[in-house]
Amino acid sequence: MHPTNYSLCPRYEHAIQLLGKRWTGLILDTLLQGPQRFCEMTAAVDGLSDRVLSDRLRELESAGVIERVVYPQIPVRVEYRLTEKGQELKPVIQAIHTWAEKWIELSDEEGRADLPAEELA
Amino acid sequence: MHPTNYSLCPRYEHAIQLLGKRWTGLILDTLLQGPQRFCEMTAAVDGLSDRVLSDRLRELESAGVIERVVYPQIPVRVEYRLTEKGQELKPVIQAIHTWAEKWIELSDEEGRADLPAEELA
Repeated sequence: MHPTNYSLCPRYEHAIQLLGKRWTGLILDTLLQGPQRFCEMTAAVDGLSDRVLSDRLRELESAGVIERVVYPQIPVRVEYRLTEKGQELKPVIQAIHTWAEKWIELSDEEGRADLPAEELA
Repeated sequence: MHPTNYSLCPRYEHAIQLLGKRWTGLILDTLLQGPQRFCEMTAAVDGLSDRVLSDRLRELESAGVIERVVYPQIPVRVEYRLTEKGQELKPVIQAIHTWAEKWIELSDEEGRADLPAEELA
């Protein structure tokens, strides 16, 4: 006999599906540094297109993880920032980074392809 | 000017892709309790088919997260257990659970569909 019976935890599945999308971890990393404008994010993240960033921001906003703040000035200023729900993802993201840094080995090719140009010089 | 430039972290992406597969979190949950035989896992996890469990175990073994231990007795006994790499996923899985329990709200239907039968009585 087993002491415990496990069922698929729908909350866990929701969370992992949200975090599991390509670029999402990275977008959250940038927002953990503070609020960002759209163009600041595309400038900061190598290879992130406007289209993909726009999709991810919409998903994260609809999940309540980030919010879009509009400052009524001319020209209008729009920033994205983490909500409390988003801020509390910090330990999750840190735990994944810590584990991945220690345990995931990359082939040379993968590693080099993703290094910033200055580190390849 | 931005102080930091972010590139897609291939280690993070590997990790999240591994964890992000349906059932994987739950299989790791059961193995965090100790080594398990195949039939113990299908018995413990509601709705997990032999086919899916077999696929996930193969993926996790090839990722070095679990190992298959064969005891040479008659009939032969086979157990699956976490490697050190797998054990160290514990804080990651716990962080996701903690966040998800606090922040992910489910519609009534989703919640009830995944509750064990005794909790619906």
